[in-house]
Amino acid sequence: MNTIPASSGSFTLPGEAGFEQLTLRLAKKWGADTIRDSDGTQLSPEITQSGYAIYSTVCLVRSVQPWARKNRDKLQQNFLMSRPVVATKSTLTIPLLDGYYTEQFAVNFKDSPKQWWQVFDRTTGGEIAKTKWAVDPKKGAVTITGATPGHRYTVNFLAFRIWEEISMYNHLTNNWGDREHLAAVDPMQPETQKVILDFLAGWLRDHAATRVVRFTSMFYNFSWFWGADHKRLRDIYSDWGDYAMTVSPRALRLFNKKYGYALTSEDFVNGGLYNSTHNAPSRRYRDYMDFIHGFVIEFGRKCIDLVHARKKLAYVFYDDHWIGVEPNSPRFREFGFDGLIKCVFNAFEARLCAHSRGVSTKELRLHPYLFPTGLKGEPTFQAGGGGNPTLDAKNFWIDARRGIVRAPIDRIGLGGYLSLVEAWPDFQDYIEQVANEFRLLKSFHKGDAPYVAPFKVAVLTAWGDLRAWTCSGHFMQNVELYHVLEALAGLPLDVQFISLDDIAKNGIPRGVRTIINCGRAGTAWSGGSHWADPRVEAAITRFVQRGGGFIGIAEPSALPQPGQNFRLARVLGLDRDNGERLANGRYKYDAPAAETSATHFITTELANPTAPDFGPKEIDNIYVLGPATQVLAERSGESSPRLATHAFSKGRAVYMSGFKFTYENTRMLHRALFWAATREAAWGRWHSENPKTEAAYFPKRKKLVVINNAGTPQQTRITLADGKTARDVSLDAHGIAIL
Amino acid sequence: MNTIPASSGSFTLPGEAGFEQLTLRLAKKWGADTIRDSDGTQLSPEITQSGYAIYSTVCLVRSVQPWARKNRDKLQQNFLMSRPVVATKSTLTIPLLDGYYTEQFAVNFKDSPKQWWQVFDRTTGGEIAKTKWAVDPKKGAVTITGATPGHRYTVNFLAFRIWEEISMYNHLTNNWGDREHLAAVDPMQPETQKVILDFLAGWLRDHAATRVVRFTSMFYNFSWFWGADHKRLRDIYSDWGDYAMTVSPRALRLFNKKYGYALTSEDFVNGGLYNSTHNAPSRRYRDYMDFIHGFVIEFGRKCIDLVHARKKLAYVFYDDHWIGVEPNSPRFREFGFDGLIKCVFNAFEARLCAHSRGVSTKELRLHPYLFPTGLKGEPTFQAGGGGNPTLDAKNFWIDARRGIVRAPIDRIGLGGYLSLVEAWPDFQDYIEQVANEFRLLKSFHKGDAPYVAPFKVAVLTAWGDLRAWTCSGHFMQNVELYHVLEALAGLPLDVQFISLDDIAKNGIPRGVRTIINCGRAGTAWSGGSHWADPRVEAAITRFVQRGGGFIGIAEPSALPQPGQNFRLARVLGLDRDNGERLANGRYKYDAPAAETSATHFITTELANPTAPDFGPKEIDNIYVLGPATQVLAERSGESSPRLATHAFSKGRAVYMSGFKFTYENTRMLHRALFWAATREAAWGRWHSENPKTEAAYFPKRKKLVVINNAGTPQQTRITLADGKTARDVSLDAHGIAIL
Repeated sequence: MNTIPASSGSFTLPGEAGFEQLTLRLAKKWGADTIRDSDGTQLSPEITQSGYAIYSTVCLVRSVQPWARKNRDKLQQNFLMSRPVVATKSTLTIPLLDGYYTEQFAVNFKDSPKQWWQVFDRTTGGEIAKTKWAVDPKKGAVTITGATPGHRYTVNFLAFRIWEEISMYNHLTNNWGDREHLAAVDPMQPETQKVILDFLAGWLRDHAATRVVRFTSMFYNFSWFWGADHKRLRDIYSDWGDYAMTVSPRALRLFNKKYGYALTSEDFVNGGLYNSTHNAPSRRYRDYMDFIHGFVIEFGRKCIDLVHARKKLAYVFYDDHWIGVEPNSPRFREFGFDGLIKCVFNAFEARLCAHSRGVSTKELRLHPYLFPTGLKGEPTFQAGGGGNPTLDAKNFWIDARRGIVRAPIDRIGLGGYLSLVEAWPDFQDYIEQVANEFRLLKSFHKGDAPYVAPFKVAVLTAWGDLRAWTCSGHFMQNVELYHVLEALAGLPLDVQFISLDDIAKNGIPRGVRTIINCGRAGTAWSGGSHWADPRVEAAITRFVQRGGGFIGIAEPSALPQPGQNFRLARVLGLDRDNGERLANGRYKYDAPAAETSATHFITTELANPTAPDFGPKEIDNIYVLGPATQVLAERSGESSPRLATHAFSKGRAVYMSGFKFTYENTRMLHRALFWAATREAAWGRWHSENPKTEAAYFPKRKKLVVINNAGTPQQTRITLADGKTARDVSLDAHGIAIL
Repeated sequence: MNTIPASSGSFTLPGEAGFEQLTLRLAKKWGADTIRDSDGTQLSPEITQSGYAIYSTVCLVRSVQPWARKNRDKLQQNFLMSRPVVATKSTLTIPLLDGYYTEQFAVNFKDSPKQWWQVFDRTTGGEIAKTKWAVDPKKGAVTITGATPGHRYTVNFLAFRIWEEISMYNHLTNNWGDREHLAAVDPMQPETQKVILDFLAGWLRDHAATRVVRFTSMFYNFSWFWGADHKRLRDIYSDWGDYAMTVSPRALRLFNKKYGYALTSEDFVNGGLYNSTHNAPSRRYRDYMDFIHGFVIEFGRKCIDLVHARKKLAYVFYDDHWIGVEPNSPRFREFGFDGLIKCVFNAFEARLCAHSRGVSTKELRLHPYLFPTGLKGEPTFQAGGGGNPTLDAKNFWIDARRGIVRAPIDRIGLGGYLSLVEAWPDFQDYIEQVANEFRLLKSFHKGDAPYVAPFKVAVLTAWGDLRAWTCSGHFMQNVELYHVLEALAGLPLDVQFISLDDIAKNGIPRGVRTIINCGRAGTAWSGGSHWADPRVEAAITRFVQRGGGFIGIAEPSALPQPGQNFRLARVLGLDRDNGERLANGRYKYDAPAAETSATHFITTELANPTAPDFGPKEIDNIYVLGPATQVLAERSGESSPRLATHAFSKGRAVYMSGFKFTYENTRMLHRALFWAATREAAWGRWHSENPKTEAAYFPKRKKLVVINNAGTPQQTRITLADGKTARDVSLDAHGIAIL
């Protein structure tokens, strides 16, 4: 049952000059059709002329260093907020870069500070008049006159970035010593655009053997502001989705011209919070993202056209300098990319890559990377150093595989130093197996799609589809929605992502039967200030009244209002007390009974039905509104529901005080979605009973794929189309079965 | 050392007809000078003519039932908010009293609903036009037309209270069956005032033997709205300080006339939160309190004048119908009361009573009350039922005594059924001892005051002195400030209570060296919206810059601002992340070291210096701002400080993530106050080393009182005026020593 046929293609192998024999042997073993270079490796003619497609990486903004060195005023820049300083007398000097890493930043004194900078009295919240402060470029400081003692002041200022962050990270991590600090040029400058296009034309000439040009990525990196003290506070600010590092006076001027209004430094600085993806975005910032996206498409298209003119393919890496690329945007297709490459740790990242529209090829870069040390510091390929790359590969693969089973991916590949695998023959064998498994799964998706539940599920956030299948970068333990996404990524469901704005304007999309809203109050995931639009509450309330389902996790629909905190409290049958209800009584609900929870549709498969494991940081102080709310689990020693259901008019709501990705909780969430949708009757079709396993049925091919998500052998029973007929299946550890 | 001399006086004994011999015997044994009646007991002529001062209770608003029965439109009333109802179509009917206890409330349809009521669309937050809703008195409902499906609606309406709450509580608790439901009349009505004054005149004539008239209390009870379902939600709303139950159309008209603007129902309803004392009060509500306080003084004065005209004394009970009395108000003296009586469970309540200005006599009603069942349901005087009234009395006494040692109290007494103590001779003996102990302590206070630290301490809240030494009624476990008050109540400190308004207007009071701000975000105790005034932040920042101390507990100075949550984050050297800083790095502070914390001035006496016990609900997600913040204790498994210090300019700040009243924590708080004040050098004068004991030195009498706050014998060492010379003292369980 577990014999996967050998096959070839759809695999990108990292070649390495000096290891030509190994490169070609493994290319054959793994069925590679493409050989790539990596950061730090070269391909020799023996490899590039071996008949494999050649794939070469290029980072344009980092590639024109002579120009960057000569044109320090054309480097990329961003707004920074100085550290707040408290006045002791009426004159106050604020050292601008205090606390920041001065090898990354240099204050931009050149573009008129009085025009672009702002100084704030953060105690009153008011801006200080331009006449009341002066810039001292020598000291790198701003001096304020007429300050009020006891008030705190900050300066928003422009800074050039004199060291590009990915280069900086690799340089410092690997102790590159004297190697040049690469800087990123800003393609918003017309002269720089010309330099970049010239460079690219030359590079394409020099890479005659290259079939695929992989851009790393376009022009602007995600935001990453480093502190001076790398031990105590290296990352002052780091957000995978923030457009902070695209700003320049030129960008602001062009924005004003196009959108008819001016942005200020504070639109970016936001009191030091910047525009973190985790916080609900403002309308102004969304406009700015739009503007940059438009620019990146416009100039990106010129670069891609050059590639296509050379009859090469253009792929883009969905990490690093991906800001403005936005593979989930409807405009993404305008780039004309041929491929999108995503490095994946988790199933949701496979879905993220698959979700993009507008490229023909979607490729996953699997972990572990072929580096001596893994991204989390583990000794992956260090023999005798405790590394076990084969086991790592198995564990990464079962996570990514959950997503690949659900959504079509075209290619997989590895990155790094191929020479490292020479000492690990079992790793070589396992990758061969992974490649064959992948190609088999890919073949099932061709002209077919796996069975999904007979209703649609929508994940509701402030971002909607633009941040589908991610929050902001890789998995973060303390963001509940990541756990939910990882659970959903492997479930047989048709999932879509909608924003509160979408609902306000267009209502609930047709076919959606259950909506999930998951996150902490104020975050973009819960929705934050976007809940201020009453149309959203009204539309969802109507939706549930008419029979829809709503699952709220953590602080769903949270927005402080007089006497209420969750907008959808009436729908959920409960609300959170943020501390303002000390004088308000709480309805005493029936304590969860083990027997009731053990037999409830949602919790029946939990080992401990009244005590699900939602991790260490679930929400407390939840109170129920009345007898219609059924509490299935509550906090230990506290009358605060952890899991509750509520029938509301013709619909149903489910509340969970948190969520943690485990196979048991994934099963529970799956059940909760069916229960909220009032579709329990449809439960169990093409279903694997053991929660550590999952089943996917490809109806046209009549193939049932059963995967074991555990590191131990598993037994399971599969129920077929009628939800009743069953077949028993045995699976190896990390194994797969095709029925 | 523990022999307290026998003495007499200053003791109020509850007499009981039918137990004359017991009454007179115990009056002698306990040194009583006054005999009282209680709710449910009578005094016989044998008692009233025994030569003791007689003390009689009267509740005026409950005392004129014939008038109340005939004038249902002159009963007291209040605004209620209906339960929110979600519209499913454009017409919507809201049953007004749904969920409320209809034996307490009757809707006031008589005073024009269109004038006084308000209907809200809580989804938009807007008020519904008066033309869009109609009242149906028969159904007790409001019908809204033109409602938006999916929106939720509420009605603010006036309701008469047809059953006075204290009577209702006693009636239902004691199963009084058919006994009349007493209603409270509203003395805001001129005709009712006349009826009350007539009643009081007659009552005074009938109580010729009475020396002290004890009012229970003035006219308006604290707010207490009962639900229909007594098992699930008896107390829909209950707040010891809310003026909700004083409202009437007449009051609103008079207010408008006097203050020049109109209040609306929503000023009282506040989305169902009402004006809980725990939440920061609005300016409008404070005006209304002022207005009612003025009225209660004005009419109260007329009643008291009648008492004085009869050559009797007028005392007032500081509970039940105390709204508008405000014993902490500077206007309280205008009543002309002779005495104030407070029932005490805790030390802070003794301080609360002592704190009032404007009465010559302050009397404490000690626990246990002589009832078969205690206020918390315990079987106090039930022989064979597990009761141990003597031990209860000891435990209540050591708590109250901590406050009595610190601040002068004039009298103590008991309440209830004296006959119950007949079976408990050890209780009789112990009360004799308590009475003697009390009289000795009282004698020390005469013309003297106990030694306090050489600097003043201020507790900062939104209420300031008006809610000094209480939050809202008796102790609540989940309000940190209660724990702090209970700790402070027994410490040798000069404590004052200031409001944020006070600081905005007048700065920090002279002599104050350390300010405590303790509470959850948004509460009146932390300060909530009152922190919006930048003058407060500026004044406290200046104060600390110049050498002052600041102790912040839980969420001090919390007010969401761009990029900051604690107004005084810079002073504290830390702030709270409310979930908006997922992308902002946190400074990695040095983890608390056992050795450092064990030797730090603040934590040196803690059994576990890096793990203080702050109860189950301390604040998490605290991050420090830089190296100047020293973390002495952090949350287990989380980099979130629990106890931290911060040097700020010439001053110092201390942060605690919570507080729980224990003797060990009380000692730590005491030390923190000295440390924050930079007055460690003054530590240890007239000080008892064992934290379970406390010392008070009366300098003029040259008496040192040492009390044992524990139920076990204790050894301690007392350091004298120089903080060095020491004497060893042994104390009995619950004991006292006079040196």
